[in-house]
Amino acid sequence: MREFLEPESVAVIGASPDPRKGGYALVNNLKERFSDHLYPVHPGGAAICGLQAVPRVEDLPRPVDLAVVFVRAPLVPKILDECGRKGIRHVMIQSAGFAETGPPGIELQERCLAVAREHGMRLWGPNCMGVINGHTGMVASFVRSDIWKGNLKRGGVSLVVQSGMLTAGFLFQVLREEYFGISKACSVGNKCDINECDLLEYFEGDGTTEVVGMYLESIPDARRFRRALSELNKPVVILKGGASPAGAQAARSHTASLAGNASVADGFLRQVGAHQAADFLEMMDILRALALWKGKSRGSRIGILTFSGASGIVASDCLDRHGLTLARLSEASVTALKGIFPEWMTPRNPVDLWPAIEKEGLGAYRVALEALLQDPGVDAVYLHVYVDHSLLKELLEALSPLSRAGKPAALWVIGDPRCFLPLRRHVEPSGAVVFTEVERGALVLSHAMDSGNNPNFPCFAKPYHL
Amino acid sequence: MREFLEPESVAVIGASPDPRKGGYALVNNLKERFSDHLYPVHPGGAAICGLQAVPRVEDLPRPVDLAVVFVRAPLVPKILDECGRKGIRHVMIQSAGFAETGPPGIELQERCLAVAREHGMRLWGPNCMGVINGHTGMVASFVRSDIWKGNLKRGGVSLVVQSGMLTAGFLFQVLREEYFGISKACSVGNKCDINECDLLEYFEGDGTTEVVGMYLESIPDARRFRRALSELNKPVVILKGGASPAGAQAARSHTASLAGNASVADGFLRQVGAHQAADFLEMMDILRALALWKGKSRGSRIGILTFSGASGIVASDCLDRHGLTLARLSEASVTALKGIFPEWMTPRNPVDLWPAIEKEGLGAYRVALEALLQDPGVDAVYLHVYVDHSLLKELLEALSPLSRAGKPAALWVIGDPRCFLPLRRHVEPSGAVVFTEVERGALVLSHAMDSGNNPNFPCFAKPYHL
Repeated sequence: MREFLEPESVAVIGASPDPRKGGYALVNNLKERFSDHLYPVHPGGAAICGLQAVPRVEDLPRPVDLAVVFVRAPLVPKILDECGRKGIRHVMIQSAGFAETGPPGIELQERCLAVAREHGMRLWGPNCMGVINGHTGMVASFVRSDIWKGNLKRGGVSLVVQSGMLTAGFLFQVLREEYFGISKACSVGNKCDINECDLLEYFEGDGTTEVVGMYLESIPDARRFRRALSELNKPVVILKGGASPAGAQAARSHTASLAGNASVADGFLRQVGAHQAADFLEMMDILRALALWKGKSRGSRIGILTFSGASGIVASDCLDRHGLTLARLSEASVTALKGIFPEWMTPRNPVDLWPAIEKEGLGAYRVALEALLQDPGVDAVYLHVYVDHSLLKELLEALSPLSRAGKPAALWVIGDPRCFLPLRRHVEPSGAVVFTEVERGALVLSHAMDSGNNPNFPCFAKPYHL
Repeated sequence: MREFLEPESVAVIGASPDPRKGGYALVNNLKERFSDHLYPVHPGGAAICGLQAVPRVEDLPRPVDLAVVFVRAPLVPKILDECGRKGIRHVMIQSAGFAETGPPGIELQERCLAVAREHGMRLWGPNCMGVINGHTGMVASFVRSDIWKGNLKRGGVSLVVQSGMLTAGFLFQVLREEYFGISKACSVGNKCDINECDLLEYFEGDGTTEVVGMYLESIPDARRFRRALSELNKPVVILKGGASPAGAQAARSHTASLAGNASVADGFLRQVGAHQAADFLEMMDILRALALWKGKSRGSRIGILTFSGASGIVASDCLDRHGLTLARLSEASVTALKGIFPEWMTPRNPVDLWPAIEKEGLGAYRVALEALLQDPGVDAVYLHVYVDHSLLKELLEALSPLSRAGKPAALWVIGDPRCFLPLRRHVEPSGAVVFTEVERGALVLSHAMDSGNNPNFPCFAKPYHL
């Protein structure tokens, strides 16, 4: 698998000198990673992005680690044979027009597989957008260069997806918004050979992968998938496409996937210890939280600190819906809160700080936060803040206890959206995750916090975030 | 009720010359609406925001339409009596420290009510943030002036909330992000006299209110509430706080509300034809969609137009979860789509436009959109788009058929977030509502589209958006 994810030499077969073509973008993108050992193949032998193309595969100066193929589908079997003769053993087919298009495409895909087997060659794709490696800076994809350049960030999240969108436009939206950095992003397409199991097995030994997100339309080898997941000591979040009959029907013409019954898939994924997401951004939210809360304690008792009675109440309702409970405050916490509360007010959870803020200013957050972070009965803190430019600095100071938090913290923020990113940049490195919807923060907390009554925490998940 | 929502003259009792105080903000805010007929009352008779205060209520030049009271709680009964003697019949108590603080506060609140009854006076509050009228520009609230100035927009959404946050920081976040404009925003606090029923009855005759959103912690008079709702020919979206036991307990110390059993409340709200939201932004999303889809047809058969197979599949799953179905395309639609599709591809719903876009450019959207908007089997269109600066203009042109749409359209957008607002400004005036999560768009569609199998559409809702 190393040759696919961390190749030292790459050939682009179907490279194009026309900047509007994917075969140009492939070379242009790969040039950012490879100052050397990048070989465009183009029948006319044109110069592409300053690199002299060779006209045929056999003209390549060496058997490269990885050949990326982006020629018209009917030409692919012949190209594969040429690659095999050249000694190339890892080929990624990014062209579309295979099993997803119906019977003739299915047959074409079978022929590709047969040629590959003849040569002992592994195939990635077809009908995919390739691989991005955040740590080496390799973008082996025909994604438009202006979408990703300047937006690629290295990090601990790896993705395996049956959708080019999730390694192109959507991924770079998420990276631009600083959700997380990327280890590997893998678009696997029709998965004629290499599939999610190969990648799970690779991630087990991949030092930079901390959490794995998957968008899958099919899981054809359930037994191997279960074994790979049980051997992978890292959290996995899965969005399963095609859970409904209508969605399953659509999956057939997208990646030729036979999507299964929704409740069977749900039961299977819970049993193998995978987190399940219902939508793309929800998956990204769970991933960034699991990455940020790595190494933090877990449990189901949540302490809410809020400036708004209503948001404390709605948060309580949301946490309850997700099987989490409100922590009972310790004597020490009650005493600390009494020091900042007006006399008429009894400290209880959710802790409504508004009267204390009116009395003491935003410093009330610091006192309350320190109390709850030290309270042995509180497993995680759900903090609500209002922010705008006039009080950003003071608020960030008041939130400083977060930097010493040994337990997960979620923040719900409202106010001036221009202050949300500065807030996130300040608190997220200490493991406090910022959300803009109360419900989303509660849902994501439930994915990290163990509880017998929690529908989101996978049945047999290993304590990977202890 | 006119005196509370559209007063011609207002006194502020508890006005303050200190710009850090709420009693200053009240005068400062009201001055934006009232060049005249605004009377601060302050014991020292100071000048406040350029207005000469009178020292006592009895010194007011006239019995104003509305007196806003913002003095310490124990002083309120005496102030009410002075207002009564002056002939003032409508008083809004924005001070806190009443029933929400426990038994002595409950007794104090009862005394206020007794005084009011003696004088035939209606009371609003206490423990609230007052009223905002988007059409007259009146902000009768102690909200910080810099939060709202420049952000108030007139529109068709009215709010009734038991939470100051929802008429202050959060409301102006939503207005700044151009979710909608406001008719009336009413923070009702402890509701010792005026409550949600009074406001529903008022909204029935209020020409500028088109949809109503409510955050309620209690509905004490269920019979009157049901009647008011059945007589109001406008959609109502309710977020009920305190549905869980923990949330209900918290509601008691927030607005002294006795929140009820979750499933009872749920059944009741469905029966009275109210839409239910689970969170604040979700409520705002449903409100803006119901406002924008006013006058459009409804039905449960959705046509999906997407650039991404995966998002079409996930959207199908989400729609199914919310009781909506995929439309079966008409012969005419299939013919139109065949004109832009590659030969191997059979048009079906969800319509994956990617191969057509590769072939025809973004103009493929125009052809497909026109077909689905004219298709009698399609009740609403769920459109997915990728946008960035390089193709914003071309995309907007391709979406032009939306301006003639007689049916609801939802858009899911990804790409460069800086283009999302320009996109919204372009398409939302024609009734297409933009979302950034697939699931949210599907949920909101289900609130507008009638279907026997739809858990979100209220049981007995009247066809107000026909």
